[in-house]
Amino acid sequence: MATEAEDRRFLRLALSLGRRGMGQTWPNPAVGCVIVKDGRVLGRGTTAPGGRPHAEPQALAQAGEGARGATAYVSLEPCAHHGQTPPCTDALIAAGVARVVAPLADTDARVAGQGFAALREAGIEVSTGLCVDEAEEDHAGFFMRTELGRPFVTLKLASSFDGRIATATGDSQWITGPQARRLVHMMRHRHDAVMVGAGTARADDPSLTVRDMGVERQPVRVVISRRLDLPLMSNLARTAKEVPVWLCHGSDADPALREAWEGVGARLLSCDVSGGQLDPLSVLQALGNEGLTRVFCEGGGALAAALLNADLVDRLVGMTAGVTIGAEGLPSLGALGLARLAEAPRFTLRESRVLGGDVLHVWDRPRA
Amino acid sequence: MATEAEDRRFLRLALSLGRRGMGQTWPNPAVGCVIVKDGRVLGRGTTAPGGRPHAEPQALAQAGEGARGATAYVSLEPCAHHGQTPPCTDALIAAGVARVVAPLADTDARVAGQGFAALREAGIEVSTGLCVDEAEEDHAGFFMRTELGRPFVTLKLASSFDGRIATATGDSQWITGPQARRLVHMMRHRHDAVMVGAGTARADDPSLTVRDMGVERQPVRVVISRRLDLPLMSNLARTAKEVPVWLCHGSDADPALREAWEGVGARLLSCDVSGGQLDPLSVLQALGNEGLTRVFCEGGGALAAALLNADLVDRLVGMTAGVTIGAEGLPSLGALGLARLAEAPRFTLRESRVLGGDVLHVWDRPRA
Repeated sequence: MATEAEDRRFLRLALSLGRRGMGQTWPNPAVGCVIVKDGRVLGRGTTAPGGRPHAEPQALAQAGEGARGATAYVSLEPCAHHGQTPPCTDALIAAGVARVVAPLADTDARVAGQGFAALREAGIEVSTGLCVDEAEEDHAGFFMRTELGRPFVTLKLASSFDGRIATATGDSQWITGPQARRLVHMMRHRHDAVMVGAGTARADDPSLTVRDMGVERQPVRVVISRRLDLPLMSNLARTAKEVPVWLCHGSDADPALREAWEGVGARLLSCDVSGGQLDPLSVLQALGNEGLTRVFCEGGGALAAALLNADLVDRLVGMTAGVTIGAEGLPSLGALGLARLAEAPRFTLRESRVLGGDVLHVWDRPRA
Repeated sequence: MATEAEDRRFLRLALSLGRRGMGQTWPNPAVGCVIVKDGRVLGRGTTAPGGRPHAEPQALAQAGEGARGATAYVSLEPCAHHGQTPPCTDALIAAGVARVVAPLADTDARVAGQGFAALREAGIEVSTGLCVDEAEEDHAGFFMRTELGRPFVTLKLASSFDGRIATATGDSQWITGPQARRLVHMMRHRHDAVMVGAGTARADDPSLTVRDMGVERQPVRVVISRRLDLPLMSNLARTAKEVPVWLCHGSDADPALREAWEGVGARLLSCDVSGGQLDPLSVLQALGNEGLTRVFCEGGGALAAALLNADLVDRLVGMTAGVTIGAEGLPSLGALGLARLAEAPRFTLRESRVLGGDVLHVWDRPRA
């Protein structure tokens, strides 16, 4: 019988395997699985890019006959429904696993406790309740999509000491140093999509890809543009057939522009307009509808402000450089229209550390 | 014979004793002294508030007869000139000290090597060169005043995540949390003066005192106001007779206002005006002339920008809170008039740490 410390250790291993899939497995959760017998790891699995195969059958295949009587540590409740793959509970039962350890139940209505029930029914011991916080953190995007229909939103703003992202003339290269820029690529890689506003797409002509990291599967590139008045001679348009470009636009966008963008390979998502702006919740629901669970927003200031005002920012990532630009520089954040400080969106410090010559600080929306 | 490790240990003790006097001893340096014989500390001294008595005679008095044949660890070269106190070199010689260990020579022309020379002439062994960086850091303000005629300037800007210090309506209480605010009081205490611009003095009606720390000697309160158009019904005016208030003004300030401020007890320093503004270098030279070695500037944005533009900020202290205020909020820093990012003032990260719910980051001007 494994001790709680052993259970925790192997569950952490399963969680860390699962995290490897972050940004790669949507719309499925990035799950990790470890098959253990007599304290020895016989098989490991991570949800494959694209979301299939799941972690459990891969780990079971590695363990082979050894899985009989073993314990399966899984970072999320195994699926019990016939989707595009047979249910993982069937695979675990068929392999003769004696015990399944998972932190918590899936929130997907098609699983939600039914996976555990199916296992128990087959005489398999099921233990839950360990590493719950880590699992909730790792699966936050997947849970948010199943519960609220929208992806988890990380808003990254890299700025000067005084909160500016460019000089008045638009000079922005480089405010932060190479380590900070490398971390941005790492963060892009761990999200399903990278999202910017139309102003940033026009001003910076960004590629929004993950570079210099040997990445096979690139995040979807999302641009929020009510009118689709984006340059067709741009890095995004030019590469839309290789790496997905999704454009969230208003229903009143010019049909000719829609056709042009579809022609270069972009995918168009029509969203609600409210108060003359694309409604940020409608945008995120459209993205959730398409399967995205984790979105990394890199500005600009107007989109960032719209998301903050709609209380749709789940994590705030700041990178502060030791350079001062002054009040005429471009602000990292647009107008929020606050009268009183008490109305201002507040976040809770999660982590802060030195990042080369810059300071990284990560904040979470306080839990309700 | 003491090893280098022992020398370093006792010199560090002397340095830490010296630091206790920071902000209290101007125009004199805050020096620490330890008298050691056979590895035992026989006396300790710190430059007294107001700058006299010096550290050495206090430590010698504590050691008494034990000082004969002992080693004196001093955080700066002992003075050799007859000022308002007899030279410390005489006291060390008279006490029969066998050896003096100090990191480096004083830069004051009246001392500058003559203290060491007088000790050597009296047959005392003098060792220098240990803990030089720490000593240069601790005495940076004193050295800057003797070498450049101006105090060391620390600029503190506590702001929201997006670099704002108040909402558009002026609401600024509180952006950062209690730990950050307490650190501000600690930092005020370790500087000779706290300095703000006229706009901040008008908008916030600040006291600029060190509170809740059992402090006896308050820092001088300096306000930079070309025209002296500051409210006479204010906390600063009301308390100017208890805690010094110095006003740096232009020579064109209204004589009636000058008289009124002198009447409530403020000290007036006339400074040069250039380009319609008080010249920041002239202001700092006036403060240096009055004996200040360390000035803690708390904004506002216009004064901060003027100091940065004149390359007169030696240390930048940022405190970032997890609150977002938006672009219509008051910026921490005024306009700098930069065209290109390459012209922007850059600082080097010195320290970053969590401060309650906020992030502290401290930056130094890169060494020339």
